[in-house]
Amino acid sequence: MRIRNVKHKKEILENCNNVVDNPKEYKGKWNKYFNNKNPIYIEIGSGKCRFIIENAKRNPDINFIGIERIDSVLALGIKDNENLPNNLVLINYNAEDIEQLFIKEIDKLYLNFSDPWPKERHAKRRLTSSVFLTKYEEIFKNNKVIEFKTDNRGLFEYSIIEFVKQKYNIDYISLDLHNCVNNDNIMTEYEEKFSKKGYNIYMIKVSKK
Amino acid sequence: MRIRNVKHKKEILENCNNVVDNPKEYKGKWNKYFNNKNPIYIEIGSGKCRFIIENAKRNPDINFIGIERIDSVLALGIKDNENLPNNLVLINYNAEDIEQLFIKEIDKLYLNFSDPWPKERHAKRRLTSSVFLTKYEEIFKNNKVIEFKTDNRGLFEYSIIEFVKQKYNIDYISLDLHNCVNNDNIMTEYEEKFSKKGYNIYMIKVSKK
Repeated sequence: MRIRNVKHKKEILENCNNVVDNPKEYKGKWNKYFNNKNPIYIEIGSGKCRFIIENAKRNPDINFIGIERIDSVLALGIKDNENLPNNLVLINYNAEDIEQLFIKEIDKLYLNFSDPWPKERHAKRRLTSSVFLTKYEEIFKNNKVIEFKTDNRGLFEYSIIEFVKQKYNIDYISLDLHNCVNNDNIMTEYEEKFSKKGYNIYMIKVSKK
Repeated sequence: MRIRNVKHKKEILENCNNVVDNPKEYKGKWNKYFNNKNPIYIEIGSGKCRFIIENAKRNPDINFIGIERIDSVLALGIKDNENLPNNLVLINYNAEDIEQLFIKEIDKLYLNFSDPWPKERHAKRRLTSSVFLTKYEEIFKNNKVIEFKTDNRGLFEYSIIEFVKQKYNIDYISLDLHNCVNNDNIMTEYEEKFSKKGYNIYMIKVSKK
């Protein structure tokens, strides 16, 4: 994705109460930060944060943390959103170092439309590679739960195999999410755009103890 | 599928040297039947047998057994095929009783375009249900290897979950088989017809020790 530079992005991030700019300080203490014992759901690669914001609004009894690597993208998502909910934290951070942010405190991880890194030599950079799945092991509290959506067939095929290799069970799978009945799917900006173009959206929910 | 009755189907089956009409007698003795120690690959639901015949011709060092429940369909497949290869056996049998035909002697199982039994209350009849996967456990020799193709999205989603529940690893998966490079896919009659209509063909290869 070509990303245009966002004017005043630093100010936008600094002025937003939901953005935590020293997240490493809360490693192991996120429930204290939220000042409750509610479950914590995180999203890696939140983009403009539509998914995580809507999720937080719909589920006030869950704490949500959205992580986005690119400051301009995060700033774009924030600048038109006043009154973000209290159960939402946003972090500008590279998920490669996710283990510096959390330890045994996360209940669910969302991965939405992650970069497919289509070249085989870049496979380890995919957020569902064994490299990342191993990192995630350390951040989950008890049960490990991941929900993954993508429109990229190759990435989806790869990810199913990786999840199973890492001994995850498959709780749900859809090869055409938008043609399934009875789903309470929250769309990302990207998802809406590509679904309108007629692309298939794939989804899988996996878990292990 | 509506199946037209095939005239002289009994004679066609009786006159074909590749059809074994007393298959239960060879349970545990199929390598003796073939008179070699080659691996044995079976297909449940062979239909008109195009897949298993072509597979047998391409792989003379493997023994193939095609099982088809409906005599008319099997007869249709045979009647225009003279000179079937020696490494091929065809059986008119209901796979519900598969454990009466084989024990610890099968190396690979093919399931191609199995009946999707779309109603939830019929799920146990699907050839990838836990009911059948449990039966298959007993017929495999050492490694358990299953290759499954379908154009039915619901059946494919269901089957992935069932395979993983039964502790199979996923060795290969394609959500659009006919748009993958470098595959040596042998098409069934059904597959060719539905692929030409633009339907997606799904494939998964699973195994466990």
